[in-house]
Amino acid sequence: MAWQPKIMRKVRVRNSQQKGILAKLLTAVAEAGGSVGSINLLTETSRHTVRDITITAKDEKSLAAVLSAMEANVGTKILEVRDEVLELHQKGKIAVRSRHPIKSLTTLRRVYTPGVAEVCARIVKDPSQARLYTSISHMVAIVTDGTAVLGLGDIGPQAAMPVMEGKAMLMETLVGLSGIPILLNTKDTDEIIAATAAISPTFAAIQLEDISAPRCFEIEERLQSMLDIPVMHDDQHGTAAVSLAALMTATRETRTNLKKAVIGQIGLGAAGQAIGQMTMRLTGNPVRGADLNPQMMSRFESLGGIPSTLAEIMASCDIVVATTGAPNLIKPEMVRKGQIILALSNPNAEIDPDTAMERGAALAADGKSVNNVLGFPGIFRGAVDADAPRITPEMLLAAAEKISAMTPSGELTPNPLDKRVHQAVARAVAETAIKQGIARAEYVPYVEE
Amino acid sequence: MAWQPKIMRKVRVRNSQQKGILAKLLTAVAEAGGSVGSINLLTETSRHTVRDITITAKDEKSLAAVLSAMEANVGTKILEVRDEVLELHQKGKIAVRSRHPIKSLTTLRRVYTPGVAEVCARIVKDPSQARLYTSISHMVAIVTDGTAVLGLGDIGPQAAMPVMEGKAMLMETLVGLSGIPILLNTKDTDEIIAATAAISPTFAAIQLEDISAPRCFEIEERLQSMLDIPVMHDDQHGTAAVSLAALMTATRETRTNLKKAVIGQIGLGAAGQAIGQMTMRLTGNPVRGADLNPQMMSRFESLGGIPSTLAEIMASCDIVVATTGAPNLIKPEMVRKGQIILALSNPNAEIDPDTAMERGAALAADGKSVNNVLGFPGIFRGAVDADAPRITPEMLLAAAEKISAMTPSGELTPNPLDKRVHQAVARAVAETAIKQGIARAEYVPYVEE
Repeated sequence: MAWQPKIMRKVRVRNSQQKGILAKLLTAVAEAGGSVGSINLLTETSRHTVRDITITAKDEKSLAAVLSAMEANVGTKILEVRDEVLELHQKGKIAVRSRHPIKSLTTLRRVYTPGVAEVCARIVKDPSQARLYTSISHMVAIVTDGTAVLGLGDIGPQAAMPVMEGKAMLMETLVGLSGIPILLNTKDTDEIIAATAAISPTFAAIQLEDISAPRCFEIEERLQSMLDIPVMHDDQHGTAAVSLAALMTATRETRTNLKKAVIGQIGLGAAGQAIGQMTMRLTGNPVRGADLNPQMMSRFESLGGIPSTLAEIMASCDIVVATTGAPNLIKPEMVRKGQIILALSNPNAEIDPDTAMERGAALAADGKSVNNVLGFPGIFRGAVDADAPRITPEMLLAAAEKISAMTPSGELTPNPLDKRVHQAVARAVAETAIKQGIARAEYVPYVEE
Repeated sequence: MAWQPKIMRKVRVRNSQQKGILAKLLTAVAEAGGSVGSINLLTETSRHTVRDITITAKDEKSLAAVLSAMEANVGTKILEVRDEVLELHQKGKIAVRSRHPIKSLTTLRRVYTPGVAEVCARIVKDPSQARLYTSISHMVAIVTDGTAVLGLGDIGPQAAMPVMEGKAMLMETLVGLSGIPILLNTKDTDEIIAATAAISPTFAAIQLEDISAPRCFEIEERLQSMLDIPVMHDDQHGTAAVSLAALMTATRETRTNLKKAVIGQIGLGAAGQAIGQMTMRLTGNPVRGADLNPQMMSRFESLGGIPSTLAEIMASCDIVVATTGAPNLIKPEMVRKGQIILALSNPNAEIDPDTAMERGAALAADGKSVNNVLGFPGIFRGAVDADAPRITPEMLLAAAEKISAMTPSGELTPNPLDKRVHQAVARAVAETAIKQGIARAEYVPYVEE
C-alpha cells in the first residue's frame, strides 16, 4: 500500500478543575504527534470535567505515545479509548430494506405471489413501466475491482468495500438513490466490461469506482457505448466536476479571468485527464500537462493538451492543478506570486496550502476542500431522473457551475452535507439533459421522502 | 405467457343499513365471477356502513362485470376502486439504506474518507475481517435471467424484477438479510456463470431464481464448484425443502410410514427433480418419476429414480407430488382411496384439493399451503451465519424437519410470516453445518435488530 492510513480514536478524559488544564492537555497531544478533532463536554462538576476528544495519530505507535502524554498531564485521567470508526463499520454500513412492512398475508399476497404477477405482466406488455413499478429506477451500481482505492492503491475488491459502502450511504443520505456495491474478482478489462454489461438491466446507472488507469478509460468508454444508461467513472468525471467548481470559485474570488489564464495540470491519471479535458472544454484553450508516464502524456496530447513538465508548469502557469498522489512534489520555491494552486492529492497534498500562500500564491487549497462527495450524488440523481442514456460533458459543466454558484462567499466549495446543493445539482444536470434532447422521461425532480 | 395473472382491487363500498345487504352483495360478486379477500369495516352510522372489500377477478373484463354487479345491488354504492398492488409497487419495493445517519462532518470522516482507510487497511492485513466490518456478511445476490418466472414463463429479467424485489423484502423482513436483485441480460449458460462468478466477492451467498431447466442444473453445479460461498437455486432446493416438510407433516397427520410408502413425482422440472432427489435421500427408496421430456426423465433416472408415467404413478403410489405447471392434469377418477396428493403447481393445481378429497384422498393440498417463503430465508440465514461454503442436502433436510416440527396441529405448514419459524430453521441449518464440519465462523444466531 502506498501510504499508511491514519487512525482515529475517541478518548474519554476526566480533568480536574484547574485553570488551563485543557490547553495543557492539547499541547501534550500536539507535542506527542497527535492531532485533535471534535471535543465534546459530557459532564462538569465543581471538581471534574469529562470530555470526549477525537484524536488522530499516524499509526498505533504514535497513538500509544499520544495516550501516554495525555496520561502524564497532571490532573488528567483517561477513562476510555474507543475506536468509533470500527464501531460504525460493524456488520457493514448499508442494508437493503423493504419500502413497505409485510405484516399480514394480505400484504404478502400483494407484494409477492399472486399479486406480483400482475405487475410483471404489465412490464412485459410495456417495458417502460419497469421504471415506474420497480426499484431499477433508483438503483445505481457502484462497480470496483479495488485497484486504485484512496491512496491505498491496489488492495482488491473486498478491502475496498468500506469505501463503496460509504459511497452508497452518501447516495442515500444526500439524494435518495440506492447504491449497490459490486465487487469484481477480475482485473481484466474485457471481463470487467462483460460482467458489468451482463448485470446492467438491474440498474438505472453505473458508477465505476477506484479502477486504475489506463484501464479505467477503456472500460468506461466501451461500457457507455454498449449500454443505454449512464456509465460514469467517478474518479475521472465526478472529481473533475468538483475540481472545476473549485476553480470557478477560486477565479471568481481572486478576480482571475479563467478563459485568459494559462492553466497547467500536474499528474495525468484518471482525475488529471478528466480535469484537464473539462477545463479545455470550458475555456476553449489548451491546458499544459505533465506526468512521468509517457502513455498518459500522449493520451492527454491526443485530447488537445500540451505536453509539459512540472518545472515548466510551475514557472509559466497562472493556475496549477495537481493530482499526482505524490506528497510535497511541489517545492515551496516553485510557487510564483499570484498563482492559484489546487494540490488535490489525498490524504497528503503536493504542497501544503499554507506554505503555498506564504510563498505568495493568490489562493491555495488541498483535497480536503475539493471533496468528490459534492459531485456524484447530484450528477447521478439528475441523470437518472431525466432518464438520460449518458452523462454528457455539458451535464458535468452544469453540475460544476451549480456547485460553484452555491458556494458561500469566502469558501472554495459548499458544505458537502448540504442537501440543497445536491438537489440543485441534480436539477441542473437533468435540465441540461432535457435541453440537449437526450432526456427520455418526463422529469420529476427528486424530493426527499 | 402461459397464463393470465389474476387482478386484485380494493373496492370501497357504502351500504345502506339493511338486513343481509352484505351477504347479497357478496353473492352478487361470486355470481359475477369474482372472489372476495379481506373485508374491513371503516365507518358505521345508523344509515350506512363503509367497507373496503378486496376483490380478485380473472381479468379486466371480469372485473368490470363484478363491479357492475356490485353497483346493481340495491343499497350499495361503490365509492372508490383502488389498485393497491400497483400502489405498493410504485418506485419499487426495496431500497438501500444507511445503517447510521450522516449528520455531521465528524461522522462523514468516520464512515467515508479519511476514517474508512483504516478499515480497508485492516481487511488487507486480514481478509477474514471483511466479514466483521462490511455488509458482505449479510448481502445475498438474487440472480435471475427471467426465463421461468412464476407461471408466466420466459418474461425477461426486468419484468421479473417485482418477484426478485418480493424475495428481497422477505429476506429482510423475516431474517434481516440484504437481498440484492441481479438481473442478467443473457440466457447463455457460460455467460451467466461468468458474470455471477465475477461479482461473487460482493456477497455472502448466491440465490439463483427463476432460471429455466435444464440450464438451471448446470449453472448451479458449476457455480457452486467455482465459489466458496453457498449457491442455491431456490426453485429446486428451497421448494424441495418446503415440499418435504409438507410431506413429513402429511404422513404424520395421516399416520403413513414415509419410509415404507410408494412415492411418485409427476413433473421433473427444477422443483420436481429436487423434491424427488431429496425424498430418495430421506427414505432410502427410489421415487417413481414422470415427465413428457425424455431429457428430464433420464436425468431423474441417473439420480436413482424409476421412470414411470402419470397413469402408473396415480395407480400405484401412496404419495403423489405434482409439479408440472399443467392445471387439472390429474383427473378425479385417477385418485385412489387413502392417497396423499400434493398438487403444487401455481396458481392452478394439477387437481383441486377438495376434488381429490371427495375422491377419497387421505390428504390433498395445493401450492398455496406449500409456500417457498417458508424455506429460502432461514436456509440462507443459517448457511451465512455459519459461513458454510455450500448448502448440503443434510442442511436442507434439517430445514425441512424444523419446518414440519413447527407446524401447528391440523395444518400442513406453519404461517410463512412467523419469524420464530425462520429463526428456528436458520439455527437448524447452521447447527447442521457445524456438525458436518463445514462451518467456518463461530456461529452467532441471528437476532432481529
